[in-house]
Amino acid sequence: MTFSAVELIIKKREKQELSSDEIRWLVANYTQGVVADEQMSAMAMAILLNGMNRREILDLTLAMIDSGERLDFSSLAMKTSDKHSTGGVGDKITLPLAPLVASYGIAVPQLSGRGLGHTGGTLDKLEAIPGWRASLSNPELYKQLAEVGAVVCAAGSGLAPADRKLYSLRDVTGTVEAIPLIASSIMSKKIAEGTSSLVLDVKVGSGAFMKTRERAQELAEVLVQIGNDAGVKTSALLTDMSTPLGRKIGNALEVEESTEVLAGGGPSDVVELTVALAKEMLSHCGLSDADPLENLKNGKAMDKWHQMIQAQGGDSKAAVPKAKYSHDVLAEQTGYITKLDALAVGVASWRLGAGRERKEDAVQFGAGIELHAQYGDRVEKGQKLMTLYTDTDEKFERAMASLSGGVEYSEKSPEKRNIVLGKVG
Amino acid sequence: MTFSAVELIIKKREKQELSSDEIRWLVANYTQGVVADEQMSAMAMAILLNGMNRREILDLTLAMIDSGERLDFSSLAMKTSDKHSTGGVGDKITLPLAPLVASYGIAVPQLSGRGLGHTGGTLDKLEAIPGWRASLSNPELYKQLAEVGAVVCAAGSGLAPADRKLYSLRDVTGTVEAIPLIASSIMSKKIAEGTSSLVLDVKVGSGAFMKTRERAQELAEVLVQIGNDAGVKTSALLTDMSTPLGRKIGNALEVEESTEVLAGGGPSDVVELTVALAKEMLSHCGLSDADPLENLKNGKAMDKWHQMIQAQGGDSKAAVPKAKYSHDVLAEQTGYITKLDALAVGVASWRLGAGRERKEDAVQFGAGIELHAQYGDRVEKGQKLMTLYTDTDEKFERAMASLSGGVEYSEKSPEKRNIVLGKVG
Repeated sequence: MTFSAVELIIKKREKQELSSDEIRWLVANYTQGVVADEQMSAMAMAILLNGMNRREILDLTLAMIDSGERLDFSSLAMKTSDKHSTGGVGDKITLPLAPLVASYGIAVPQLSGRGLGHTGGTLDKLEAIPGWRASLSNPELYKQLAEVGAVVCAAGSGLAPADRKLYSLRDVTGTVEAIPLIASSIMSKKIAEGTSSLVLDVKVGSGAFMKTRERAQELAEVLVQIGNDAGVKTSALLTDMSTPLGRKIGNALEVEESTEVLAGGGPSDVVELTVALAKEMLSHCGLSDADPLENLKNGKAMDKWHQMIQAQGGDSKAAVPKAKYSHDVLAEQTGYITKLDALAVGVASWRLGAGRERKEDAVQFGAGIELHAQYGDRVEKGQKLMTLYTDTDEKFERAMASLSGGVEYSEKSPEKRNIVLGKVG
Repeated sequence: MTFSAVELIIKKREKQELSSDEIRWLVANYTQGVVADEQMSAMAMAILLNGMNRREILDLTLAMIDSGERLDFSSLAMKTSDKHSTGGVGDKITLPLAPLVASYGIAVPQLSGRGLGHTGGTLDKLEAIPGWRASLSNPELYKQLAEVGAVVCAAGSGLAPADRKLYSLRDVTGTVEAIPLIASSIMSKKIAEGTSSLVLDVKVGSGAFMKTRERAQELAEVLVQIGNDAGVKTSALLTDMSTPLGRKIGNALEVEESTEVLAGGGPSDVVELTVALAKEMLSHCGLSDADPLENLKNGKAMDKWHQMIQAQGGDSKAAVPKAKYSHDVLAEQTGYITKLDALAVGVASWRLGAGRERKEDAVQFGAGIELHAQYGDRVEKGQKLMTLYTDTDEKFERAMASLSGGVEYSEKSPEKRNIVLGKVG
């Protein structure tokens, strides 16, 4: 069947529904370059402003999956489960979570990306470990899943190429924030990755993509619907991203904090979220009685971590890189910290060199921020609040500028922070 | 001042107003290729769906004018007046109108385009006259205006290049139908052409771009506002395009009918509209008492026509080309014609070869349609209703198909057709 790109754009512009055939045609022909970038960006804007219904979003997701290869883990003797986070500051949860869930005999194929902007990427973090490599061939991926159970590696370029192309386009055309496009982008990759169950960590707050609870709830509902419609057991947690997760932000710093958690310690918010997501993943695989905290405490998750890192050439016992320079930021007042803004800290860390400005940039492994106090803690004026790290001395100034206004104090202790704000599915 | 294209797109997407500086930056940088096509098409869709206010539309128009050269006729010893039609079937009005108005001592610089789609272009029509050439240099244009008073020629590529670029983009991205974009496209060219007064013929009905009275009224108001805001005395007539103008549709056929009108005859609707537009143009130039019908009857307009055509190399007394083949369409019923659909006739004429499918195609000068009866006429079953003309025998079938359903009959005489439906400004 053949359609006219202009007619399809006009249809969506006039708030009409696109048929399954029309969506399939559009995505296939965009991938092949028959539908031009300037046509797809007009369509993306029409979708952003006029929306898509549940069926259209599912069709869009399926069409993006069909644009490339699809992995299939059904030959494995294990159940598979996957987690996806919409991204946040200090969000290193994949690092302890994948080995933790794998320690219960579940296969966790965690295909991940790199960071762009203030929210850091899982692959950048793991590359701080000497020798660790992100790229695996499909046979290597299957072998490691069967033998170790946990894999964190780069998503191959064969998965959902339509999504890759559309994502770059949305980035430069002001069409990133459309829920149908965000949802189909996330879910096409995750479904193509072949997992049989999926838990979504939808972040809410200043450091997240979704700034309000309502928008996050809406996205979570759409994501869960698509997953279940496509035959993947899917649920979502809405979690707080108003303040950074844990005490360490930056690539090597987050590896350090993750191993603290795997050793049975670590900051309570990171532990709490890791356990909540693990419970959800395990329950999708029929292990709703398991207590994930157990394998964090008894060393089984840590054993799995070493196997997982070493299988990809990483020296999991070596020290991670340290930054050349550090700078302490002191508390400006005495009192309780009532705000420690995730976005401000994320941008500061990014400016210190933990993130990249353009795709082709390298990250500094040692760069980032260590928090000595967090939201709700009481501090004395002049006490060390955080330490900034970078390999490039002159970066401190711009990082400090982004922190300005990011910290607030009060004489009264603020409300307790809830990490998990809600659940969908 | 420098801006980010993405931020401007997001601003309009979020229904915010763009500042004058932002609009100037956007248009200048789009013309130079700094803002990419895919960004401009997303912006065009956001403008189509979220609108622009009067100030924004004026700024957009002025920015498009500033992208190129601007003609200046202030050194002429005559007042200048120009007409623009939004396009219709059988709309040959420019041909008798330009010499008619010039016969009163007004300079009429009528820079025109070619046809694409079912609404024929003025230059294509005049090129049916042996020897006539559409392209004039600027000095030739000034000289002819000073000596003859009337010029119909091709708009140079130096006028509003931003509009040319944006128009091609809108055509393939489903963003043609946005009033701010239509209005700034029309007015940027007209204002750059340097006229001091302007009359707009905004067509309403099946054969027009604006299908409803409401949309046409809205467009007319915006056009008139921009013109007056930019210092050009501007008004608009809303005119009927539910049925073709006159009895002849097609390039050479319309030249024939125009000379009938200039000879003091011709179909009453063409005469009525020519006179109404001429009155409006003359009144802008301080000649509100002149009766344009006079110079149609006394031969002065015809004299001006010969001078105008001959000044551009045309043999205004030679016969225009005839098509090789003709085919009569007969009335299917006895009764009054209650519908003779402009779009159906326009598409049929276009399919016969009077129009072009792609920009690079040539038109057939002799192709088109001659109507033997019009809306409101009484016909007998089997009587000749129209004659189709083409140089390509096999085109009759598809032309006939487009006429299907285009003609309706009734025992009762329909309401009289009004050509001029309203006036703005």
